[in-house]
Amino acid sequence: MRKLRAEQFGLTRKVDYGSPEQNESVRQIVEAVRTEGDAALLRYAEQHDRVRLNAAELRVTESEIQAAYDRVDAAFLTAIREAAANIRKFHEKQLRQSWVDVQPDGTMLGQLLRPLKRVGVYVPGGKAAYPSSVLMNVIPAQVAGVPEIVMVTPPATGGKAGIDPYILVAAAEAGVKEMYRVGGAQAVAALAYGTESIPPVDKICGPGNIYVALAKRSVFGVVAIDSIAGPSEIVVLADETADPAYVAADLLSQAEHDEMASAILVTTSEQLGDAVAAEVERQLATLPREGTARQSIADYGAILLAESMDEAIAAVNRMAPEHLEVMTAEPMALLGRIENAGAIFVGPYSSEPVGDYFAGPNHILPTNGTARFSSPVNVDDFVKKSSLIYYSKDALLANGDQIMTLARHEGLEAHARAIEIRLERER
Amino acid sequence: MRKLRAEQFGLTRKVDYGSPEQNESVRQIVEAVRTEGDAALLRYAEQHDRVRLNAAELRVTESEIQAAYDRVDAAFLTAIREAAANIRKFHEKQLRQSWVDVQPDGTMLGQLLRPLKRVGVYVPGGKAAYPSSVLMNVIPAQVAGVPEIVMVTPPATGGKAGIDPYILVAAAEAGVKEMYRVGGAQAVAALAYGTESIPPVDKICGPGNIYVALAKRSVFGVVAIDSIAGPSEIVVLADETADPAYVAADLLSQAEHDEMASAILVTTSEQLGDAVAAEVERQLATLPREGTARQSIADYGAILLAESMDEAIAAVNRMAPEHLEVMTAEPMALLGRIENAGAIFVGPYSSEPVGDYFAGPNHILPTNGTARFSSPVNVDDFVKKSSLIYYSKDALLANGDQIMTLARHEGLEAHARAIEIRLERER
Repeated sequence: MRKLRAEQFGLTRKVDYGSPEQNESVRQIVEAVRTEGDAALLRYAEQHDRVRLNAAELRVTESEIQAAYDRVDAAFLTAIREAAANIRKFHEKQLRQSWVDVQPDGTMLGQLLRPLKRVGVYVPGGKAAYPSSVLMNVIPAQVAGVPEIVMVTPPATGGKAGIDPYILVAAAEAGVKEMYRVGGAQAVAALAYGTESIPPVDKICGPGNIYVALAKRSVFGVVAIDSIAGPSEIVVLADETADPAYVAADLLSQAEHDEMASAILVTTSEQLGDAVAAEVERQLATLPREGTARQSIADYGAILLAESMDEAIAAVNRMAPEHLEVMTAEPMALLGRIENAGAIFVGPYSSEPVGDYFAGPNHILPTNGTARFSSPVNVDDFVKKSSLIYYSKDALLANGDQIMTLARHEGLEAHARAIEIRLERER
Repeated sequence: MRKLRAEQFGLTRKVDYGSPEQNESVRQIVEAVRTEGDAALLRYAEQHDRVRLNAAELRVTESEIQAAYDRVDAAFLTAIREAAANIRKFHEKQLRQSWVDVQPDGTMLGQLLRPLKRVGVYVPGGKAAYPSSVLMNVIPAQVAGVPEIVMVTPPATGGKAGIDPYILVAAAEAGVKEMYRVGGAQAVAALAYGTESIPPVDKICGPGNIYVALAKRSVFGVVAIDSIAGPSEIVVLADETADPAYVAADLLSQAEHDEMASAILVTTSEQLGDAVAAEVERQLATLPREGTARQSIADYGAILLAESMDEAIAAVNRMAPEHLEVMTAEPMALLGRIENAGAIFVGPYSSEPVGDYFAGPNHILPTNGTARFSSPVNVDDFVKKSSLIYYSKDALLANGDQIMTLARHEGLEAHARAIEIRLERER
């Protein structure tokens, strides 16, 4: 691995906005679905997925879901159920209440919190179909109280319209009751605008390829969308007390995701840095995804040496990593100084996969430096607020003149008169 | 006003994505500021605002702010201070704490909440400069604990580089310490990428013209942005107990904003509808902005007649209005059925300007039907969350096998091995 000075190191990778051809293709698909509905969905299923369907076959049936249960292995089912319970428990702690502030003059001001009514979760097909991501997208919405959660996922290509049974089981365990076999930009368009078979939603979330990402961007405003994920990152902050084999294993667990993934060690100990570099080489050699991981380490991996823990922490905050592991002598003492990180894994046993799969916090995290201003997926993402304003007569009589002063200063006379007409009648 | 059946009425207006020329112009401006910094800002100030500045003059000085205080009138200063105190008090109730869940096996899981570090607030120039909007954007950020809040606003055009003293005073009262005289797309680019004089921010908020809106869209992802506001709306839900003069005055307070504003009465009482229509005509005649209000009422105003309160509420939820007033015999009893509204004003004394200026809740609200999934500006918009995961050795030993099962199912062997290497050593 490259050894660099931590001092000036920054980490920014390009966001993929698609080629002009990809953008135009998505524009056409979205427009076709908006105007033609199901007919366009069925046409694209044939063109893109090489699957012939009729409209009645878009929805996954109850018996398919039952059949999926018979095909997944028992250890998986046990593990995903326990993971789902942990995720549910963590997200339930995020739930908030509507509130109201009642004032002596009778005025009541508050915030009403309500779940979104209908949410669509996109689940990619093929090798990118992760049951764990289904849980991480669906459960926060379910905990928020969203009554209608819909999953869309592409049918297996080449004539079979089936869907990976592990995905169906994960969705059913998470609480999804409504699933459609439709993928790509056309699925996003269907969720945004609705078709004869698929009623429109209020928010679309879940990862996808560049066509899905571009389609989400294009319907932003018609519906809400989640953030558009970039390549994945891990930063390990470690001192001489860290175990180099653990550090290396955790760096590689990120690097195996894809060639664009980034795995970075920031350390105050050059000795640890050297030991981690050696361990990375040793462990790489036997990985099934060695090629991907090796490319990622070569292009986006680094060992950053810092003169002091202050310098190391400054580098972490500058990178604002998606995942941060802290393996130092006193990791908890550093938390207050870590400003930017999607998830912080503390101590030698909090390996990133603990959070990816099982502990309970969400694994959908802000990437590419956006932890400066974004958060992990959470219950708030599926809740909307309405302000409540009940002004009493006394309050209006007491404050009406000031309201009129401000309105008239802004040249909004009709605003002032809406107050004035009441003051004239009620005073 | 048009009288229509409430049954099928929908309200959707186009989002302005700008012309190709406007998009290209914004692209060039953003790129110039990104690569040339201050030099580009000064060039555009001369080209667009016809103001010659040097880099040292971009920042508004302390003495200018002091001078502004001497120019605003005392009644305004009193009113804006009281409004600011009310806004602060309401938003302080939204503040949340970091939390941690400590489990018997030593595991600690939580959410760390931290304010964004630096936020930029755009304030339009000229007639669109509203001191009240300065308060509504700045105070939630300040209450969230954002340490650096920056205001940018265009200089007065035509050689004078001054800024409206009312805007300067509102910003100072809200707690802004750093202000720059720069506007348009170039101001947004400066906030996103930083220049020699203006350090970059984490989030940009505040309204602006189409160039500002397009520039915000284009830097989305580099920084966070707030929602892009559409035209303003009010829906009044009223029965036969409502005072038609109050209803008409409140409809007009929305209609005077601009020709695209929408003012709609939904009522179960045709008699009230007729009385409101007559009152609107009567009150329109003496309004200074009669032309604007009349156009808005003609194009986007309506009186919707509903057979029942259920039908009326269904129409409200379909429109998802930015502002909703409820003037019925028992307004509080209807709240639970109102699913979609940015702010709900309850009863005869809660006229919309009460909330626009003074009561405390934010007046920056989701427009154009986006109340289905969006919320008023609030403290959460300036807070980011980091997950905290501290897994104990016991927890890892107990759950490691399940984590490996899930990782291996997804084909992510390096994930499984990051757990396995620990189990081998620690078991």
